[in-house]
Amino acid sequence: MKDLKYYLKEVEEIFAKEVFVAEPKELYEPIEYTLRLGGKRIRPTLLLAADALFGGNIDEAKGAALGIETFHNFTLLHDDLMDRSPLRRGQPTVYCKWDENTAILSGDTMYALAWRYFLRQPSPRLHAILQCFNETGIEVCEGQQKDMNFERSSEVSIDDYMDMIRQKTAVLLAGALKIGALYAGAPDTEVEKLYSFGIHLGLAFQLQDDLLDGYGDTAVFGKKTGQDIRDNKKTYLPLRALQLCNAAQQNELQRLFATKDNMDEEEKVRRVMALYDEVGLKGEVEKAIADEFQKAARTLDDIQADEPLKLPLRELMDTLNGRKK
Amino acid sequence: MKDLKYYLKEVEEIFAKEVFVAEPKELYEPIEYTLRLGGKRIRPTLLLAADALFGGNIDEAKGAALGIETFHNFTLLHDDLMDRSPLRRGQPTVYCKWDENTAILSGDTMYALAWRYFLRQPSPRLHAILQCFNETGIEVCEGQQKDMNFERSSEVSIDDYMDMIRQKTAVLLAGALKIGALYAGAPDTEVEKLYSFGIHLGLAFQLQDDLLDGYGDTAVFGKKTGQDIRDNKKTYLPLRALQLCNAAQQNELQRLFATKDNMDEEEKVRRVMALYDEVGLKGEVEKAIADEFQKAARTLDDIQADEPLKLPLRELMDTLNGRKK
Repeated sequence: MKDLKYYLKEVEEIFAKEVFVAEPKELYEPIEYTLRLGGKRIRPTLLLAADALFGGNIDEAKGAALGIETFHNFTLLHDDLMDRSPLRRGQPTVYCKWDENTAILSGDTMYALAWRYFLRQPSPRLHAILQCFNETGIEVCEGQQKDMNFERSSEVSIDDYMDMIRQKTAVLLAGALKIGALYAGAPDTEVEKLYSFGIHLGLAFQLQDDLLDGYGDTAVFGKKTGQDIRDNKKTYLPLRALQLCNAAQQNELQRLFATKDNMDEEEKVRRVMALYDEVGLKGEVEKAIADEFQKAARTLDDIQADEPLKLPLRELMDTLNGRKK
Repeated sequence: MKDLKYYLKEVEEIFAKEVFVAEPKELYEPIEYTLRLGGKRIRPTLLLAADALFGGNIDEAKGAALGIETFHNFTLLHDDLMDRSPLRRGQPTVYCKWDENTAILSGDTMYALAWRYFLRQPSPRLHAILQCFNETGIEVCEGQQKDMNFERSSEVSIDDYMDMIRQKTAVLLAGALKIGALYAGAPDTEVEKLYSFGIHLGLAFQLQDDLLDGYGDTAVFGKKTGQDIRDNKKTYLPLRALQLCNAAQQNELQRLFATKDNMDEEEKVRRVMALYDEVGLKGEVEKAIADEFQKAARTLDDIQADEPLKLPLRELMDTLNGRKK
């Protein structure tokens, strides 16, 4: 039986075989560096598993698998530059290791390479596939802009936030699944269900990210918790906490998230976490995550396809559900 | 008879009709600003004229015309950021009017929008069209990288330079023509001739740019001449001059192009221009430009198509040939 590990191995082989080195080397070395850094390779794995779910020949979708991961890494490369993040996957980001212009132009080229990989293999549904890939890309850009807008806005609702993470994170998982299903020639109704499964999975994934920043086990999580608090980032945690707070607590939370450099950072993290605990935030967020995973599971149940072929998607869902980092 | 003006008007109408405003406005306002700034619209005009040259229905290629110009403006937007240029078409560049992150993300989104426009209208040859668009885009990125590399390199040959401007400038003109011809279903042999016409046209166009920087009439040119000299830019002018110089002149030219801030700028421009005049550079560059225009004209003559339909391409070539700015 082809399980999650099988598809992950297929994806690793696709990347191992591909040559990213080309001329001029100043352009392609950062690209190869980025694409060889690894990562969980969730999106191409979802794409291949979705193709197989509807009886597709995954060999025909391998270009798209490479393309979707290349696109994802392009967005990370530009995001790291925009956020001025020094590290990605424990290694220096391209803009730090090289410079800003290299990050801009190598990123642009990676986006073009993603298209090259998508165009490598024709398909009767290529037009729909490329449209899905492109509209997904536009949504990811819109999501990133909204994320940046939130940093400067004092009025962010939970709905705004969920819409932002849907665009910034969930649509790319959903798009990867949809593209895989399109390669297999799946019926429209099932394609849409799979897309919806991906959206719930993506929302759960992002909410977990937010939760881990506050409640992760530093030893397992691999980085210091509380970074979003130090950065005054309006993630799901403070937004949901505000709903659970009484007026006095709301004032304190808003005050803590408005401070910059005028309070000891660790003291600030402690006080925010204490407030979170007072209102029982952890359980509430866990409930929201469980809710999205449940919706994802039900949507997957509802898809008309061979049950054994759903195995890798269920495994991936379980892996993400249990993740501690 | 449909002349150059006719196709330019068609292109203006395509842009006038298109809505670039969308949410979030922080992302789309800079895009609309960029796409409404105007410019010569050479690439979409070439695309439509090439489509008509082989009997195509230009309505079917309008999405591609919009797409190629949107892509071109995306590259200008990111180039202006990388070059830290304050002005474009007499107006503040996006990175100056807004900020760096806005320039990065709006640029990325414009690239995705270019794909949306290309995907708007299906065509039996869509796969070849999209591949041409994408490979052209990759070459433009490679050309831009080479251009940046040259700034730091002391060993740039004329061949290196011609290869760089072919990628950075000429392939996009050639690609626009090829895409137009593909929409019309032109035979492969003629498509390749038209591509070659575009390469010569693009090389001539860029060499003219270099020449105008040194010898343009400031009143007509609209900007101060000698900027490439002030910036120590290794354009065709100094590279060709080096070939024409004797050893003593070579030394002086290399010394002048190595100086930074330790000589009065205007004095430097005067001395470089004096050297150029000593070796008769202007005539030599004009000869090289005329040579490319002649190759372009001969290639166009050789294309199997109705002569009257070649009119707009001849007019464009003549306009570019006579341009003073």
